[in-house]
Amino acid sequence: MISILALRARIARGELSAEDAVRRALDAIEEKDPAIGAFVTLDREGALAAARKTTGPLAGIAVGVKDTIDTADMPTEIGSPIYRGWRPKADAALVMMIRGAGASIVGKTTTTAFAHSDPTGTKNPHNAAFSPGGSSAGSAASVAAGMVPLSFGSQTGGSVIRPASYNGVAAMKPSYRLIPTAGLKPYSVSIDTLGLFAATVPDVAFALSAITRRDFAPLGRKPRIGVARQIFAGPPAPECEEALHKAIDALTAQGIAVTDLADPPEFATAWELQPVLANVEALHALAWEWKTQRALMPPKLSKSLQWAETLSIAQFDEARQAGKRARIAAHDSFKEIDAVISYSAPGMAPALSENSTGDAAYNRLWSLLGTPCINVPGCRASNGMPVGVQVISRFGQDATALSVAAMLEEALRT
Amino acid sequence: MISILALRARIARGELSAEDAVRRALDAIEEKDPAIGAFVTLDREGALAAARKTTGPLAGIAVGVKDTIDTADMPTEIGSPIYRGWRPKADAALVMMIRGAGASIVGKTTTTAFAHSDPTGTKNPHNAAFSPGGSSAGSAASVAAGMVPLSFGSQTGGSVIRPASYNGVAAMKPSYRLIPTAGLKPYSVSIDTLGLFAATVPDVAFALSAITRRDFAPLGRKPRIGVARQIFAGPPAPECEEALHKAIDALTAQGIAVTDLADPPEFATAWELQPVLANVEALHALAWEWKTQRALMPPKLSKSLQWAETLSIAQFDEARQAGKRARIAAHDSFKEIDAVISYSAPGMAPALSENSTGDAAYNRLWSLLGTPCINVPGCRASNGMPVGVQVISRFGQDATALSVAAMLEEALRT
Repeated sequence: MISILALRARIARGELSAEDAVRRALDAIEEKDPAIGAFVTLDREGALAAARKTTGPLAGIAVGVKDTIDTADMPTEIGSPIYRGWRPKADAALVMMIRGAGASIVGKTTTTAFAHSDPTGTKNPHNAAFSPGGSSAGSAASVAAGMVPLSFGSQTGGSVIRPASYNGVAAMKPSYRLIPTAGLKPYSVSIDTLGLFAATVPDVAFALSAITRRDFAPLGRKPRIGVARQIFAGPPAPECEEALHKAIDALTAQGIAVTDLADPPEFATAWELQPVLANVEALHALAWEWKTQRALMPPKLSKSLQWAETLSIAQFDEARQAGKRARIAAHDSFKEIDAVISYSAPGMAPALSENSTGDAAYNRLWSLLGTPCINVPGCRASNGMPVGVQVISRFGQDATALSVAAMLEEALRT
Repeated sequence: MISILALRARIARGELSAEDAVRRALDAIEEKDPAIGAFVTLDREGALAAARKTTGPLAGIAVGVKDTIDTADMPTEIGSPIYRGWRPKADAALVMMIRGAGASIVGKTTTTAFAHSDPTGTKNPHNAAFSPGGSSAGSAASVAAGMVPLSFGSQTGGSVIRPASYNGVAAMKPSYRLIPTAGLKPYSVSIDTLGLFAATVPDVAFALSAITRRDFAPLGRKPRIGVARQIFAGPPAPECEEALHKAIDALTAQGIAVTDLADPPEFATAWELQPVLANVEALHALAWEWKTQRALMPPKLSKSLQWAETLSIAQFDEARQAGKRARIAAHDSFKEIDAVISYSAPGMAPALSENSTGDAAYNRLWSLLGTPCINVPGCRASNGMPVGVQVISRFGQDATALSVAAMLEEALRT
C-alpha cells in the first residue's frame, strides 16, 4: 500500500513531483485494475492537470471517489444502469474539499447499486477469489491494492469499516456530518456518513485533517479503553475474536487499562431497529427509481425496499426514537472511557461464490449513533485474509478515536 | 383562494371532475400569472394527464413546487442562471409523495437563487407594488392569488412562514425531516425543512396527511398556550404586535388559557448563531457554484458566503452545539404548554422598491430547533397587507400544532 505521509515526505524532499506521484498511481491502476476492477471511470488528464497546478497539503495524492458521490467532470453512475453515463451538474461538497486540499481525483470507484448489498464485480486484492465487501468496494480495494493512497466511501450500515476490515486497510467513518454530505446520493439521510480509506491510521488522520481543515490533537495520555462485544449482534468468527484478543493484549502490554463494557439496553433496541430507519428512508430517497425503474433495481436492494413497504409509520417513528435514546445512552457510556474496541465485522471477506458483500452486524449500531469508527488493520486469518479491529469514540471525539486507533495500530505491529 | 377541502368535496359530490379542477387552476394561472410571476415552468399536459388517471386523496388538486426541488420531467433551475434548463435525473422524494397522493403538479414556482434572499421578480397578489417575500416566493403567491390550492416550499431561515404571513395564506413548516428532503437542493442540511402552503389550516393539515400518510389527530381538549415575544429578535412593527394581541384575545374569548413565556437563555444564543450554522453549511453545499461560477452568484447570497468564509471551525462547532442545547431547552419549555404563539414576521411585505424578501428574525430560531411552525392568516395592516400569527409546538408534535392553529384561525374569524 502507498502511505500518504511517506509519499508527501518524498514530495516535500523533492524526490518526486506531485505530478509524478499521481502518474505512478495512474500507472498502477493501469497495471493492476484489470484484475481487480476497483474503478468505474478514470480521468487521467484531469488528475495530472490538478497535480501540476496545486501546492495544497494533499498535492500528489491520487484519490478514488465512490461512484455515489457527485462529480461534475465525470459520470456518477451509483452502481446502477439507471444512472449509466449520468453527469451531475455540480461536484459534491466532499469533492470540492478534496480538490481544495490539492489532491488529484483519478477516478470513481465501484459501489454496489445505491450503496446497498448487491455485489459489484470488484475482487479482493488479497485473493481474487474473495469479495472486497461493500458497499464501498472499489474504494477499499483500490487502496489495498496499492493503486491509490487515499479513497472515499460512505457508510449507512457498515460500508466503510467492513470492507476496510476485509481488505486490510485503515479506514474511518467520522462523526455524522463531520464531512458534509451534499452531493452524496442518499440512502438514509439520518445515517449516511462519508468516510475514507488509507494505508495506515496516521494517513487517514492526515487526509481527514487536510480536507476538513480540522486539527486532530493527540490524546497526550494513556487512553481508557472499553471492550464492546455487541452480544445482540451475535457471535463473531473465531478469527475475529482472536483479533480482538490480540488488540486487548497489545494495549494491555502498553500499560493501557482495558475493561469489559456492558452495553446499555438502548443499544440492542437501536441495533435491531436501524434497518427500519435506514430502509424506510431509502424508500423515500429512492422513490423515483423504485416506482419508475423497478426492472433495473437489483434483487437484494429490491428485497429491502419491499420489506420497508410493509413497515408502518409508527414503526418508523419508533426506530427514530430508538436511535435518539441510544445516542443519549452512548453519551453516558463514554463518560468513563475514551474509546471502545470491538469487532470490525463478524468474519473475513466472503468468497465470491457466496454472492455477498458481508455482514454489517457490528457496524450498524454505530452508524445509527453517528459516532466516529475506525478500522485498525494488522491481523490475518489462517486463510491469509485480513481481519480488522474497530475503534469507536463518543460523537464528536474524532481526534480521540484517531489517537487511540493509531496507538492500537502501532501496538499490533510490535 | 381555493380551499383543498372545498374542492375535494365538490369532486367527491361529482360536481367537478379531477381533470376539470386541474384545468381551472391552469386557466387561472394563464389569466393571473402574467401579472404575478409565480411560476417558472408549467406542465399543462402532464398535470391534466395525472388528474385523469388517479383516485388518490389529492386527485384534482393542482400543485406548485418550489424550483429548488428536483423534478425529472421539468427543469429545476434553483432560481439561478447556473441551472438554466437543468434536468435532474430523478424526482425528489416529496415530488413522488405528491404524485403518490394523486395531486397534479402544474409547475415549478419561483425561488430566490439557492433559496437565499436575492428577490425574485414575483409580485404580491394583494398589491403588486409589494414583494411576496421569500425564498418560497412563487409558492406563497400562487396560493394567495387563487391559482393553485396547494404549493410546496422550504425553510432554512423563514422561507415558508414569512412569505405565508406576507401573502395571507396558511402554511406549515413541519418538524425537521417529517417530509423527506432527498432531492431538495440543500442550503443548510441540518436545518432545511420542506413545508406547504394552502388557503386554510385544515387544508394544510389535509394535504400534509395525504402526502405523508400520517394521521393528525385533533387535540380533543382546550390547549395550553404560551406567548413567545422573542425579545432577542428585536421588536416587531405595531401591526404585528396588534395581530398577536388579536390572537391572544380571540383565544382567551374561547376560554383558552394564554400565558406569557420567558424564553430560556439558550434560545437567544441559538438565534444568534443560526446564521453561522446555516451559512457555513451553505458554503459546503454550494462549494462548486461558489468556486467555479462566482460571477453568476447574486449579491446577497455572495455576501453571506463571503461572511461564512471568515468564520472558524470553532465558531461552526459552537453554533451546532448551541442548536443542540436549545433543542434540549425547547423540549423542557414545551412541558407545560401545547403550543407557543408568536409573530410570523417583524412586519408586512416589503415594498418592491426595498429590494428585500423581508426578515426571518422570528423564524430562524424555530428553523434551527426543527419544531413545527404554522402561519395562521387572518389579520390585515392598515395598508391592506396581510399579517400572520405563528403557532409553534414541540418537535414531533405536528398534530398539536395543526390543532391549535386551526382553533386560532377559527377564533380569529369570529
